[in-house]
Amino acid sequence: MSKHSETLSKRTAFHSLRGDWASRQQIGYLMQQGVDYPDCLSLAAGLVDYDSLPIETTRESLERLLTEPRLARQALQYGTTSGSKALRQTLLDYLALLDGITPGELNIPPERCLITTGSQQFLDLVTQALFNPGDICLVGDPTYFVYLSTLEAAGVTALGVACDHHGVIPAAIDETLRQLERAGTLGRVKMLYLVTYFDNPRGVTMTESRRREVLELLERWESHQHIYLLEDAAYRELWFEAPPPPSCLSLDSTRERVILTQTFSKSLSPGLRTGWGILPHKLVKPVTDLKSVHDFGSPHLAQFLILDLIQTGRYQQHTAMLRQSYRNKRNAIWKALEQEIFVLPGMSADCPAGGMYVWLTIPPGGCNTRFEGTLFPECAQREKVMFVPGELFFADRSHPSADVTMRLSFGVQNESNLAEGIRRLARGLRQQLGG
Amino acid sequence: MSKHSETLSKRTAFHSLRGDWASRQQIGYLMQQGVDYPDCLSLAAGLVDYDSLPIETTRESLERLLTEPRLARQALQYGTTSGSKALRQTLLDYLALLDGITPGELNIPPERCLITTGSQQFLDLVTQALFNPGDICLVGDPTYFVYLSTLEAAGVTALGVACDHHGVIPAAIDETLRQLERAGTLGRVKMLYLVTYFDNPRGVTMTESRRREVLELLERWESHQHIYLLEDAAYRELWFEAPPPPSCLSLDSTRERVILTQTFSKSLSPGLRTGWGILPHKLVKPVTDLKSVHDFGSPHLAQFLILDLIQTGRYQQHTAMLRQSYRNKRNAIWKALEQEIFVLPGMSADCPAGGMYVWLTIPPGGCNTRFEGTLFPECAQREKVMFVPGELFFADRSHPSADVTMRLSFGVQNESNLAEGIRRLARGLRQQLGG
Repeated sequence: MSKHSETLSKRTAFHSLRGDWASRQQIGYLMQQGVDYPDCLSLAAGLVDYDSLPIETTRESLERLLTEPRLARQALQYGTTSGSKALRQTLLDYLALLDGITPGELNIPPERCLITTGSQQFLDLVTQALFNPGDICLVGDPTYFVYLSTLEAAGVTALGVACDHHGVIPAAIDETLRQLERAGTLGRVKMLYLVTYFDNPRGVTMTESRRREVLELLERWESHQHIYLLEDAAYRELWFEAPPPPSCLSLDSTRERVILTQTFSKSLSPGLRTGWGILPHKLVKPVTDLKSVHDFGSPHLAQFLILDLIQTGRYQQHTAMLRQSYRNKRNAIWKALEQEIFVLPGMSADCPAGGMYVWLTIPPGGCNTRFEGTLFPECAQREKVMFVPGELFFADRSHPSADVTMRLSFGVQNESNLAEGIRRLARGLRQQLGG
Repeated sequence: MSKHSETLSKRTAFHSLRGDWASRQQIGYLMQQGVDYPDCLSLAAGLVDYDSLPIETTRESLERLLTEPRLARQALQYGTTSGSKALRQTLLDYLALLDGITPGELNIPPERCLITTGSQQFLDLVTQALFNPGDICLVGDPTYFVYLSTLEAAGVTALGVACDHHGVIPAAIDETLRQLERAGTLGRVKMLYLVTYFDNPRGVTMTESRRREVLELLERWESHQHIYLLEDAAYRELWFEAPPPPSCLSLDSTRERVILTQTFSKSLSPGLRTGWGILPHKLVKPVTDLKSVHDFGSPHLAQFLILDLIQTGRYQQHTAMLRQSYRNKRNAIWKALEQEIFVLPGMSADCPAGGMYVWLTIPPGGCNTRFEGTLFPECAQREKVMFVPGELFFADRSHPSADVTMRLSFGVQNESNLAEGIRRLARGLRQQLGG
């Protein structure tokens, strides 16, 4: 708790402690870099592809909706805090389909489904409802950096556990829990947070056997400490080769250990700001109560639009098209990496089978990838290309990999810009590495 | 802090303290009453009128927006946390117009304007960014009960100050601050919250001179304690006879003492969940940082829609129509009150000059208006009409007026239902009062 006491003594009189914690987030710094270097070709931004946004589909659906007076009135009126029940039922059916089981086998009532303002709000609500300041959350090393800020804003300590090409390593979780038990702080561990599909930043998907191992491990620890798994499945639908494994939620026979969240920001449109999630019974009331205090419920109109798109099959058509579009972009950035980057000594990355990120590792000792290193300003100022330094993704920013890693996004740039961006990055790297 | 410690010891292992605070909110209980008595004619619900929702206007605007590829792409992409800058600039111009001054005289940059998911999110963000648990907020007695829950969810103590027909009473604020100073807790008072136009629940608007008196009072106390005024102007545009006085914000020459919020939920459509507010310089970063943690920004599509409606003048046409529509409903409920209620001894209410609420006071000693009294179940179960008990609107629910007051809404029911609802209420009252 020393970190928090320190903050308390330093803070100015007119902000709350929670306001101070929130101010440490890194996304603001990153966005400021985008503002400071506006002429950069950004491989940093997590925006989605402009050309595949569902303009016509949205127009048609809203036209249908707003020419049906009964539906239109409902869509423009207040909804409930949890969101449209019809949409929540439809999402559960859709989830069962993704998981290759029947809705009856999934066996989750709509009361456990919550519609939120993007999956970010779901992540934040769960965090606020579950954790007290000083509590502990385990996260993959590396992990989605915005969630690290969400934890920090709630005064929660994030502890990183090692990952490999199959996802998080169960033995690493086990070892961390043993250490915490010895230190007497196991009782503060409430949750394990994982991006389970084409993760941000590495592009790695947890294998089915790894999912089962992690669930078994949490079950073994149950008698010592109840630990939830928060499964962030934001990129689940953006697969390129084959559908990914079932969700951890569906593999957990208790249906109470896993908190799942998905979003329409990546698979449809971020401008609708609609995400959703499944809560364990015990968290339904606290999370919904908090959401009620935050905003009474997310925009109703967007919920009606999404319900229409799923019911008419247009959403499914759209995600099929998106998979093709992002696969082409993955191919473009990968080809450029092979031609420009992998020819340099010691460079490595895994080819992502979905999502929108490549996690690049550079050889140690040459230069480092941090904001305050020499590579980032070289690239941003001289070569006019921007990446996200790997340091942002580690719970402990002094992690050795934080010196030699970066995230490259192929989400927003078109294929020709991706190739150009990688050429610029290669020039910056050669300059810095003396190649 | 004893209240908080008590909560801490009672709470179950799997919820946070903040989750517990949020669970005390009353709106959930109220909505449950609506579920328990579905055949009731509700004079309780804060929903807006269905028949005047802007269906056609919304359809046309979205059609314009989504057939313009450049705009459509922006609307469907991520925006910034603060919201569309074009909309924020337009809102400042609109605010200046409402306040009868030029944008130059208003002199507030768009950086100080934040777009939120309804004004509720603005209220919650300000509360979280400003207050630490144990801090104090002054509120009108009675006041908007949802905001009392927002304060409670942040662990803030609400202290009620008396109001009259001109708004909050400056001498009552002054006396409360003196008492707090003597008790040594003045340093915890961060803010005064007021619904300054056609308030919820009383329908009263603060007069211009009262606004100036309150601002002067806060200025006098400045050397002892800096206290913000949070001005909730949700019902500002729903005036029936004449435009109401300028905002407290515009009357404060420093432009730094008043935090203002307005919403499109009442004046356009709650289904868009779009509100906005003006922050003092010192709170811009903490509040925006918190919003970034909560959701990265409110739905972009709704922001583009609202910008279009204001720029084309359709929003202004719509609010003019709404004023007529709600005036007719006010006339209907008032006529029914005169015929059915005011003929009973000791009944009183002020005729609202705007908004959507009537605050009815019944004679003391006969029956009480609380959920647990005999009138509420008599009305809900037998007469099939529902009101909101006055107790919800008092910071201290043991306030004597909490026994004899109720809020009646003329927002959602049509004119004939309003008359019928009042007839039912009159029967319930006569039954209970033995009239």
